[in-house]
Amino acid sequence: MKFKLAMCQMMPATDKDKSMRRFTRMAEEAASVGADMLVFPEMWTCPYMNKWIEAFKEPEGGSFYTFMKETAARLGVYIFGGSMPEAAGGKLYNTCYVFDRKGKQIGKHRKAHMFDIDVPGKIKFTESAFITPGDKTTIVDTEFGKIGVAICFDVRFAEFSRRMALDGAQLIVLPAAFNLTTGPAHWDLSIKMRAVDNQVFFAGVQPARDPDCEFKAWGNSRCCDPWGKVLAACDEKPQVIYADIDTDRIEEIRNELPILSGLRPEIY
Amino acid sequence: MKFKLAMCQMMPATDKDKSMRRFTRMAEEAASVGADMLVFPEMWTCPYMNKWIEAFKEPEGGSFYTFMKETAARLGVYIFGGSMPEAAGGKLYNTCYVFDRKGKQIGKHRKAHMFDIDVPGKIKFTESAFITPGDKTTIVDTEFGKIGVAICFDVRFAEFSRRMALDGAQLIVLPAAFNLTTGPAHWDLSIKMRAVDNQVFFAGVQPARDPDCEFKAWGNSRCCDPWGKVLAACDEKPQVIYADIDTDRIEEIRNELPILSGLRPEIY
Repeated sequence: MKFKLAMCQMMPATDKDKSMRRFTRMAEEAASVGADMLVFPEMWTCPYMNKWIEAFKEPEGGSFYTFMKETAARLGVYIFGGSMPEAAGGKLYNTCYVFDRKGKQIGKHRKAHMFDIDVPGKIKFTESAFITPGDKTTIVDTEFGKIGVAICFDVRFAEFSRRMALDGAQLIVLPAAFNLTTGPAHWDLSIKMRAVDNQVFFAGVQPARDPDCEFKAWGNSRCCDPWGKVLAACDEKPQVIYADIDTDRIEEIRNELPILSGLRPEIY
Repeated sequence: MKFKLAMCQMMPATDKDKSMRRFTRMAEEAASVGADMLVFPEMWTCPYMNKWIEAFKEPEGGSFYTFMKETAARLGVYIFGGSMPEAAGGKLYNTCYVFDRKGKQIGKHRKAHMFDIDVPGKIKFTESAFITPGDKTTIVDTEFGKIGVAICFDVRFAEFSRRMALDGAQLIVLPAAFNLTTGPAHWDLSIKMRAVDNQVFFAGVQPARDPDCEFKAWGNSRCCDPWGKVLAACDEKPQVIYADIDTDRIEEIRNELPILSGLRPEIY
């Protein structure tokens, strides 16, 4: 199966309409060149900071949700809606909604691993202080096959991607927002290795870096094929990049160098 | 705990005495500069080809085994003996013996995942046709803490290194022999990612490339720290490289960015 994946590295704003306009511009650009699936960054709805996340939280079905749903239907594309702060039952989740070409919600992933980091003098962030983690992997069914969804820190845990690959995911999409410490150290590495480990396509989509915002995203969205080859990549500026995915490549690579079929769970 | 690790990227010969002389030269060089532990490449005893592996197989306690044991005792260093073809019970294993400073065998790892590859026009090799896989992970106790041992294709399976990290390995050593197809694509990536995934030190040691031998090793032995920083690396030529390991770095990094403690096995 062949399809075109668009990675929309947009810059979140602190103004809701502005963020939606930026989203729309990139979505229309991607649809106009024939992209089938669009992936947006983690927290595209606001800068990835506690105060903005609190300010922009919404329950399922709220304005951001409806906007993404309608955009998917209007443009006839799959939308992997990066993530947004989801308010539910008095809790806050970091949630990715997925809509099909008709705007039907076909999946929902709540980030399952919290980003708690404290590198002295560089970055401190305690996501678990205000976000509740989800408790499952998420795979959506599309006309092009199964696609796994993970969010940012989920990629740090090899087991999470492995589970989705074993459950049939052929592409894993990862809305994320690495920073200027972890980005240069581990971003490219993580995308590439999860692709190679599982012999799947793997696409990581970050926000563009806003020089005026306290939180500086690494950017550098990218997609790797099952051999680890970078199919598309960009720098830190706002832009849409594209990867032509051919899922037949997966079986080819798995025949050449069997990994999943060589697993020996009795040892681990 | 601090110690000096020597990665001895030697070139295997088809003459036993020649291989031993090369081993001795590197071991003496490493001991003379104060290395505590020496790691040798996968199949340092002969080129990594079916006919030579058959020709040079030995039971435990044979000439290569005794040579490594005596060298460890003579120089007062730990030796992770790369690997050699071990004949046992009518079967053949790809085995790494580990000796302490007194020459006592403290560990033995039989490669657990077989390298079966068939990339048309590039490389075809079916290790499982003549080697029997081991069936466990291997961790040795040393005065510097627990050290895991894996061999080459074992690194392809994230679960294998994870198991050793969860069991307390602070350094994982990987005698290996990647080729000119998988080497440039996945060698550096794999070493770095297993270090980062598990926040351990990870050292991969390959044979030097022999331009006159049919099997061409990638070389490029290297060691990464728990943040993925390359502490030492070389090209494809024969050489000994050194990494100063400080295992305190592990706790530091695990405090800064908790991964092992953030695992959620109930999800995977």
